[in-house]
Amino acid sequence: MTMDTAELTRLDRAHLIHPYLPGDAAERVIMASGSGCRLTDTEGRGYLDATGGLWLAQVGHGRTELADVAHAQMSKLEYFTSFWEFSNERAIELAARLAALAPDPLNHVYFTSGGSEGNEAAIKMARYHHHRRGESSRTWILARSKAYHGIGYGGGSATGFPLYHEGFAPMMPHVSHLTPPWPYRTDLYGGEDPTDFLIRELEERIAEIGPENIAAMIGEPIMGVGGMLVPPADYWPRVREVLDRHGILLIFDEVVTAYGRMGEWFAAQHFGVTPDIIVTAKGITSGYVPLGALLVGDHVAETLLRDHGFPMGYTYNGHPVATAVATANLDIIEKEGMLARATERGAFLHAELEAHLGDLPIVGEIRSVGMMLAVELVQDRTTRTPLPLHPDRMPHDVIRRETGVIVRDSAHSLVMSPPLVMTESEAKEVATALRGVLERTAPTGEIRTA
Amino acid sequence: MTMDTAELTRLDRAHLIHPYLPGDAAERVIMASGSGCRLTDTEGRGYLDATGGLWLAQVGHGRTELADVAHAQMSKLEYFTSFWEFSNERAIELAARLAALAPDPLNHVYFTSGGSEGNEAAIKMARYHHHRRGESSRTWILARSKAYHGIGYGGGSATGFPLYHEGFAPMMPHVSHLTPPWPYRTDLYGGEDPTDFLIRELEERIAEIGPENIAAMIGEPIMGVGGMLVPPADYWPRVREVLDRHGILLIFDEVVTAYGRMGEWFAAQHFGVTPDIIVTAKGITSGYVPLGALLVGDHVAETLLRDHGFPMGYTYNGHPVATAVATANLDIIEKEGMLARATERGAFLHAELEAHLGDLPIVGEIRSVGMMLAVELVQDRTTRTPLPLHPDRMPHDVIRRETGVIVRDSAHSLVMSPPLVMTESEAKEVATALRGVLERTAPTGEIRTA
Repeated sequence: MTMDTAELTRLDRAHLIHPYLPGDAAERVIMASGSGCRLTDTEGRGYLDATGGLWLAQVGHGRTELADVAHAQMSKLEYFTSFWEFSNERAIELAARLAALAPDPLNHVYFTSGGSEGNEAAIKMARYHHHRRGESSRTWILARSKAYHGIGYGGGSATGFPLYHEGFAPMMPHVSHLTPPWPYRTDLYGGEDPTDFLIRELEERIAEIGPENIAAMIGEPIMGVGGMLVPPADYWPRVREVLDRHGILLIFDEVVTAYGRMGEWFAAQHFGVTPDIIVTAKGITSGYVPLGALLVGDHVAETLLRDHGFPMGYTYNGHPVATAVATANLDIIEKEGMLARATERGAFLHAELEAHLGDLPIVGEIRSVGMMLAVELVQDRTTRTPLPLHPDRMPHDVIRRETGVIVRDSAHSLVMSPPLVMTESEAKEVATALRGVLERTAPTGEIRTA
Repeated sequence: MTMDTAELTRLDRAHLIHPYLPGDAAERVIMASGSGCRLTDTEGRGYLDATGGLWLAQVGHGRTELADVAHAQMSKLEYFTSFWEFSNERAIELAARLAALAPDPLNHVYFTSGGSEGNEAAIKMARYHHHRRGESSRTWILARSKAYHGIGYGGGSATGFPLYHEGFAPMMPHVSHLTPPWPYRTDLYGGEDPTDFLIRELEERIAEIGPENIAAMIGEPIMGVGGMLVPPADYWPRVREVLDRHGILLIFDEVVTAYGRMGEWFAAQHFGVTPDIIVTAKGITSGYVPLGALLVGDHVAETLLRDHGFPMGYTYNGHPVATAVATANLDIIEKEGMLARATERGAFLHAELEAHLGDLPIVGEIRSVGMMLAVELVQDRTTRTPLPLHPDRMPHDVIRRETGVIVRDSAHSLVMSPPLVMTESEAKEVATALRGVLERTAPTGEIRTA
């Protein structure tokens, strides 16, 4: 079936409910093909993908070797359940591989089809672990404001934005939100050292709720949707120390950070902290097939596997095609040296952004770790007041419309998570595109036409 | 990487957390290939798949034409986000197709990667719909005992088995469970007509909670995990009438029933009832790639699309490869006349089961609609007391070990949901396999060795 863009747009408007898109929005960008960091829409227009789709295209678009792997596996065994005693070679191989990559003692793998499913499972695992150990009162989950843990009712309750709760309540009870680590926003900490403030708040909150009532703390090592918030280097080690002291599990939501984006397989390695559970998805297949995986510590797995085992499973658990593609994707990341490349290319893009945008009065801070980057926009560099945003004419929309460069808006920051294969010339193109629009953006948020 | 079964089993036990499998269970069945209803494990042993994996392999295993479609799409555009204004041809085509198949006014489609994600979204949609209409007090969800709506915290709260809540609580509040329609269990209704009883209970429950506090009722048209519970023909029409009278939405969880299994595209058509939202997954791709889709009524979509649109999205929403494979899968179902075949072949298998098992004292009832079948096992046909089960030696395990026929245990019933391509001789093989084990099964649940 071949349809022109007008017809596709008509059908899209008539039948598709897009996340976060008002019904009266008429514009559509219908992607038709991709290669590396480049995309082409049905009109033949080219785009430069600086978001990796939705923070996930580690190895870039158009990898036919992954299509070949999918084809071979789908022809042989497309699917059978991994519930109970049933298993398959591809799921086993990937689990062994992930256990080898993950920090010890995270040697156990539980498969999902994505990050939202993963965070539901992680919260359940944490509570169940304590329940089976006879500490059934440990039900509370500590999270942070501006956290994003997906949109299931469990993870979504840990998510820390009002938008994700309004009209959906009542959410899952027993979640408590702490202040996020966001050093640029010094006002959050009243002049105190951010980590000192946050650790004190954590200790106080634990005392309020009672450590005997707390199952786990969940956190993105670097908060993504919140705006690539990079915590101080001592934040996670000190959090881990406090949690250990109180018998509280640490869940890292590495849906965005895992599999090379930060220059390591996992952010846990970057921060030198070992959580009890790591939730992953996205980069595990670079998006070629939906898949997620939880990496679970020996001590947690031991309790989950008691008695009748862990009583929850998603249909596609251990999907042979998804796990085959994941293994091939990890092979590419390894073979092409993408961990080192993420660090090096991220630093290059960071320097380009600094060079092109550093002098603009509306650019408050440029921050990054590896291939996770943010440009925080402000009304005033001194007061650090956020740049006012106009939904009808947001900077990232204007950048995309004018230049074809795709970046994402995350709460007053422009964020980037490009494929790890981005070239230096593409990185320059991104920085130039941002410059072109941001230099026309007034402190009121108005963007002058070019 | 090629490993022998012993090594695969060792790695599996060391690294994989299987749903519902105790850590000390040593047996693994590692599936290696499939074709039609046949599967082969890594030892070369053959199986007859009467469960469709996990109730989903409508078109059967080993369809290389679906692998070809996946390969072509993955080579061209494997993935880009469908958030905001971004879209792709395959998602649009599938949405238009589903809107055409679904009963009016269900013309809007919201994509997920599976049933659990779908039920989270459906509950959120129902609450959000009322919230946007100014009826924010409508937050309660009516469900049924023995319901299965996945394992996210939202859908999982609607799920009606203690096993899925114990150790995971607190669940999402504002869920109320009603009695399931299970005519064979006459004791549930105290001698009253089951539908009369259930409708009275529904009216009473609505009065207790207050209709102005209720968002929706969610139900599987035929309860699957509960044991293929087929409601009386007047149940859903009368439920719909009551809900309409009180402004309560009806959500059909058709994750198992949709896409041909019941001889219609949707169970809604079988029961002559139009819900406001239908949740689907599984059969939409026959499991070749994870995918789910919600079909949403015009009146609900209209409110969801107001203002900033519907504020939730899963990463893989509208995944190009998944939606391409789904369309090709629906083409196969249509082209090969599988709706009619499900009815005809299901009736054949039902008759075979009746012929082979009907005289056994432990067989209480054989029931089916299309290719959803159950054999309910009892200690005594008169009292209808459920057959005692011994976890170490369950009938379905013995059947699989002795004959290679795979059926599933669902709360004292053996349930079947075979690929819709099952042949008559395969159907006979299933019935014979069940006979061979059930005729050796005593009313105590003990199974004599052959």
